[in-house]
Amino acid sequence: MLKGYLKTRAALVEEMMDSLVPAQGVQPPIIFEAMRYSLFAGGKRLRPILLMASAEAVGADGKQFLHVASGLEMVHTYSLIHDDLPAMDDDDYRRGKLTNHKVYGEGIAILAGDGLLTAAFQAILEQPGIDAGVLLAVAQEVATASGAYGMVGGQALDLISEGKMINSDTLCFMHRAKTGALFRGAVRSGAILAKADPEQLAALTRYSEQFGLAFQITDDILDVVGTQESIGKPVGSDEKNQKATYVSLYSLEQARMMAQTAVDEALAALSVFGPTANVLRELVKQLIARDH
Amino acid sequence: MLKGYLKTRAALVEEMMDSLVPAQGVQPPIIFEAMRYSLFAGGKRLRPILLMASAEAVGADGKQFLHVASGLEMVHTYSLIHDDLPAMDDDDYRRGKLTNHKVYGEGIAILAGDGLLTAAFQAILEQPGIDAGVLLAVAQEVATASGAYGMVGGQALDLISEGKMINSDTLCFMHRAKTGALFRGAVRSGAILAKADPEQLAALTRYSEQFGLAFQITDDILDVVGTQESIGKPVGSDEKNQKATYVSLYSLEQARMMAQTAVDEALAALSVFGPTANVLRELVKQLIARDH
Repeated sequence: MLKGYLKTRAALVEEMMDSLVPAQGVQPPIIFEAMRYSLFAGGKRLRPILLMASAEAVGADGKQFLHVASGLEMVHTYSLIHDDLPAMDDDDYRRGKLTNHKVYGEGIAILAGDGLLTAAFQAILEQPGIDAGVLLAVAQEVATASGAYGMVGGQALDLISEGKMINSDTLCFMHRAKTGALFRGAVRSGAILAKADPEQLAALTRYSEQFGLAFQITDDILDVVGTQESIGKPVGSDEKNQKATYVSLYSLEQARMMAQTAVDEALAALSVFGPTANVLRELVKQLIARDH
Repeated sequence: MLKGYLKTRAALVEEMMDSLVPAQGVQPPIIFEAMRYSLFAGGKRLRPILLMASAEAVGADGKQFLHVASGLEMVHTYSLIHDDLPAMDDDDYRRGKLTNHKVYGEGIAILAGDGLLTAAFQAILEQPGIDAGVLLAVAQEVATASGAYGMVGGQALDLISEGKMINSDTLCFMHRAKTGALFRGAVRSGAILAKADPEQLAALTRYSEQFGLAFQITDDILDVVGTQESIGKPVGSDEKNQKATYVSLYSLEQARMMAQTAVDEALAALSVFGPTANVLRELVKQLIARDH
């Protein structure tokens, strides 16, 4: 059931992104081409899906919010393009395809990221059918999650920590900012769009934080035990880049237990919801089972 | 009179930016430090001032809109940081100071730009005292001006045109996107915030487009006839980078005439306004007189 849901929703997001960042009639074509190259490089569209599933937990139809949902995917994609640059992680492959700067050069790749971040806000601000005050709150939510207080700050901390010993508090702060903040922003945006009451919003926020933690820990585990084929990039890149991870700081077994605990706590946070939250439940459970 | 106005307004913008991107109590400090390094490297704050002066032409108090005004300066500053990177213009100096990546390294400079772009939207979306629908329209205006349909697109066109012969149409399109769009967005945002009627908005839009043109032509002229001391960066960098400019495509004398025509047309566009538009009049006239 979840598989069909994910496929249908991802297709809707891709259709919306195709119209938001068009291939035809744009000038100069190269920048739109570069933006589209990474947008359509085959992600799971996890952040848009979290937004829609969160809105559905509250009782709304998640498909109503495709502009905001697509905006989140565009923020995520921009961060990957910049993350892969030689001055950052210096990765040649992403999801099994050449990274943006390997195809278009560093200058265009930087601009493609800039263009996507801006287009993300444009998409969010153009979401139809939503009260202007609610939409402002959602756009602020995404901005806070994406900027120096969230994802960008986490990325900076990651960059300056390379090759250094960091303690578990710093690792936790870094991941909460670098990957956790945008998951949290996605889930909270869905809840706000669906007019969640304060108790529901608090429950979904707790869910999103544990989801982010489980995601990061399993990501670190996969970097050690995965295969290049299944994860689409070279295995062991964290070790190559001398990055502190949940596996390097704890043991593989401890990391697995921590991931399980985060999943359990995410599920517990959803106890205020009935079956409307079943997709969110499945999403967090499958993090542990995934191989990519 | 204009000098005092500019000084006071620039100080207000700097005060606001100081509170929007704080130096203390932030984590990790390095990213905020890098953002602030370029924010407080001494610009003229021309875009925020255009926004405020435009609102004043319509009869509002421009100082009410400092959040949006500062957001524009943050967009401008992020574009300078990314523009100066080795993969783009590869400049070591900007306004007489080392460029961001020369101080903080390329990775942090890219992230500082990303952080500023995001913080710009955050600032705009937090502007108090404005109807949510109006604020959404302003944020959309800024997003359109900054992204692939505006500044980022122009920058990409500039990048792929280096060392190539381009015709005057392409040069004009490039500058309208690269620098013109943000001036236009600044003036239109001020007008929209001040609740300009359609005739006023159209007049201010025409003004802003001619302002942008006059600005770019005089910028190209200064790159040839200015001194490093007065413009704060090496003279002749356009020629070094084999960039087509208004001076390389036309003659110096023709470029001066074109700048004068743009100024005259900008002034003509303001004919629907009385003395409330005097600051806008002075601002465009001084473009021709400037030496930096």
